[in-house]
Amino acid sequence: MKNILILGAGRSSGHLIHYLLKYATIHHWSVSVGDLDPALAQNHCQNHPNARTFALIANDTQQLYNEIKQADVVVSMLPFALHPPIAAMCVELSKSMFTASYVSEAMQKLHASATQKSVLLMNEIGLDPGIDHLSAMQIIDKIQQKGGEIHSFKSYCGGLVAPESNDNPWGYKFTWNPRNVVLAGQGTVKYIENGNYKYLPYHRLFGQIQAVELGSSGSFEGYANRDSLKYRQIYGLPNLQTIFRGTLRQKGYCAAWNVLVQLGMTDDTYTMEGSKNMTKNMFIHAFLPSNITDAPNYLQQIFGNDALQKVNYLGLFDNEPLNLNQDSTPAQILQRILEPKFALRPTDKDMVVMWHEFIYNLKGKTHKTESFMVIKGESPESTAMSKTVGLPLAIGVKMYLEGKITLKGVQIPTTKEIYEPIMEELAQQGIIFTEKYTAL
Amino acid sequence: MKNILILGAGRSSGHLIHYLLKYATIHHWSVSVGDLDPALAQNHCQNHPNARTFALIANDTQQLYNEIKQADVVVSMLPFALHPPIAAMCVELSKSMFTASYVSEAMQKLHASATQKSVLLMNEIGLDPGIDHLSAMQIIDKIQQKGGEIHSFKSYCGGLVAPESNDNPWGYKFTWNPRNVVLAGQGTVKYIENGNYKYLPYHRLFGQIQAVELGSSGSFEGYANRDSLKYRQIYGLPNLQTIFRGTLRQKGYCAAWNVLVQLGMTDDTYTMEGSKNMTKNMFIHAFLPSNITDAPNYLQQIFGNDALQKVNYLGLFDNEPLNLNQDSTPAQILQRILEPKFALRPTDKDMVVMWHEFIYNLKGKTHKTESFMVIKGESPESTAMSKTVGLPLAIGVKMYLEGKITLKGVQIPTTKEIYEPIMEELAQQGIIFTEKYTAL
Repeated sequence: MKNILILGAGRSSGHLIHYLLKYATIHHWSVSVGDLDPALAQNHCQNHPNARTFALIANDTQQLYNEIKQADVVVSMLPFALHPPIAAMCVELSKSMFTASYVSEAMQKLHASATQKSVLLMNEIGLDPGIDHLSAMQIIDKIQQKGGEIHSFKSYCGGLVAPESNDNPWGYKFTWNPRNVVLAGQGTVKYIENGNYKYLPYHRLFGQIQAVELGSSGSFEGYANRDSLKYRQIYGLPNLQTIFRGTLRQKGYCAAWNVLVQLGMTDDTYTMEGSKNMTKNMFIHAFLPSNITDAPNYLQQIFGNDALQKVNYLGLFDNEPLNLNQDSTPAQILQRILEPKFALRPTDKDMVVMWHEFIYNLKGKTHKTESFMVIKGESPESTAMSKTVGLPLAIGVKMYLEGKITLKGVQIPTTKEIYEPIMEELAQQGIIFTEKYTAL
Repeated sequence: MKNILILGAGRSSGHLIHYLLKYATIHHWSVSVGDLDPALAQNHCQNHPNARTFALIANDTQQLYNEIKQADVVVSMLPFALHPPIAAMCVELSKSMFTASYVSEAMQKLHASATQKSVLLMNEIGLDPGIDHLSAMQIIDKIQQKGGEIHSFKSYCGGLVAPESNDNPWGYKFTWNPRNVVLAGQGTVKYIENGNYKYLPYHRLFGQIQAVELGSSGSFEGYANRDSLKYRQIYGLPNLQTIFRGTLRQKGYCAAWNVLVQLGMTDDTYTMEGSKNMTKNMFIHAFLPSNITDAPNYLQQIFGNDALQKVNYLGLFDNEPLNLNQDSTPAQILQRILEPKFALRPTDKDMVVMWHEFIYNLKGKTHKTESFMVIKGESPESTAMSKTVGLPLAIGVKMYLEGKITLKGVQIPTTKEIYEPIMEELAQQGIIFTEKYTAL
């Protein structure tokens, strides 16, 4: 009996666990699910006969060691910083591991030892990174097989709220880790456009946005992801003249988020003095010049009506205590303020949108292929985010246990061996990309 | 015969060396001066009978060890990152050391071991930090002795060009390390104003400036220094309702520098691809959206005429090759562009301006004391910067050798024992503060 170990049973683990439990019955696998809160694990497993749940103390290395030792394959849904030590333990115990996180430097360093031990450390096999790789490589390979030469690749993805649940002025609710949303984009953005390298500092990121029109699926705006340049190598397209990856938001979001960035509210590098006892209004005034008496009017003059309306929705001008346990960073305080305002309500549905655009030369002509997917969730418990993150992971784990993945070492899912069966099964699960072709 | 070891003989070391050589004759001291370029050391020493010069390899620890062993006191004018290892060697060999740099964490860690060995590690005894401490503490002690309660302290300092040499649109030339000028202000500025903590992110620093009017000495503008808060403790004024420290520039400088900051040109965290073969025009376009064809006009619309005229003076729109040896960071490239444009010419004089403002309550009334100094240099070799950095250091070293400083451990010059004699001797050397009193 093969044993799958799943570490972390938060919202994103739902579809992953359900899928693997379904195949556990067929294949006589056992699925062990651990979380700091074992009730979360139990809730996903619903007393399934092949499931075992346990309380996971992620920094208890002895517990981790014992659990990994009993497993045939490990899936980590824990915060990404925990992946490298867990992966090192997997290599030591000759167990393969799957994550939906970016390959960090610490993870990459395990490549040689993992390969030597015939261990697979598969990363970036969720939504973004994950389905972006699978769906892009499928089209890239198809174009290249026809002899096409791709010179431009743009790709956007967004975890959004479905139009029918879109009832706040930001057009946004949290469907994944709020902390990551607050810190998104910090550092310098790098991309290449028409052969020219472009660099965009964080403080201009939300002011320099792109319109993304997806016909009946909606009109969005996109801001650039941090490092698009590395995808030339990842996708085997070293001669791309344009490569741009971005994040989708509803129109108007970026201009309002830019107010928070300009003020300095997303800074996570220092603790604000006395912030424990601050009100929301004191928080915003800490970023304004002393002589500002009418903060809403001052900000409206600079950033405009629409942005100010969104900022106002956050209650930033209210004399409402922050009720923090300790002095905190601006980013931590902002997250605390956003969480109730951007929470999914019981009837809410989320929506994941991904869109690729390839421009290529073939037989002396220029062609454009677009490919996009729009997936809606069912409820705050069964989100499109959880589905699109969890299913590629789950299918990958199933393929691995069925002996269908022969890769070793630190990998990401860009080869046909991986993307073809996963994309096929994702389509069966309703995760479908629509292609649109245009002669230019 | 006592031996003074001076490490580093750049432009800032001139007055330091001349002063100590003068007293070396009287007191029969020897002065050893080492620099990577021994000609610089020779040039300052001019075959003085009490001087010895040598070629210093700053990372040759054996050489440093041998030199420090022969010294009675060490002065380091090397880059500040080199101070802690040199200080550790000084502690090991029971030698005291003087620097004009901020006390780093690594330096502070040596306090216990230095104290135990009766070694003095005196830092921040140059201009800023240095004369700012000396001159501020003198007034603070005077006000407090009268029973005054200080509630506001503002202080500005600037290394500028003298009005008669002010012939470029920026009103600025380099009189100290250009790299520090390019990187100035990065991080988050923190100060307190009327009892309210204020935080200013780097990207707003040069847009939120203060006017500083110094009567016949000129009208300036000031941008905030990084951490003003810590000076409450340093100056023993924990209850200050306002504390603000800033850097002075000629009017209009900050608005133009802000263009460079907004574009992202001061970023030192990444290397620009292909920058080795860039022109200045390619450099600026790397920070602009692709669709910008008329960059000067685009930037003028955003930042205005005055700022654009200054940016234009840098030749940023010229098709002039950067001629770099290797791909470089934006900050490194900007420094390369600025150096010839902000160079002192043979007839140029620089100017150092420092201004303090204290507001305090005394006998039920509110009073204001201002104190300021304006010092002009003589030539690019004998700058006001070199004089104001070097003389406090030199006087401190002389006092130490005369047995007039009894402090041990890691120290900065804030006690009367230090500031009184140094301020007195600085006045004899023409470094004079003018006080102005106003009843409010």
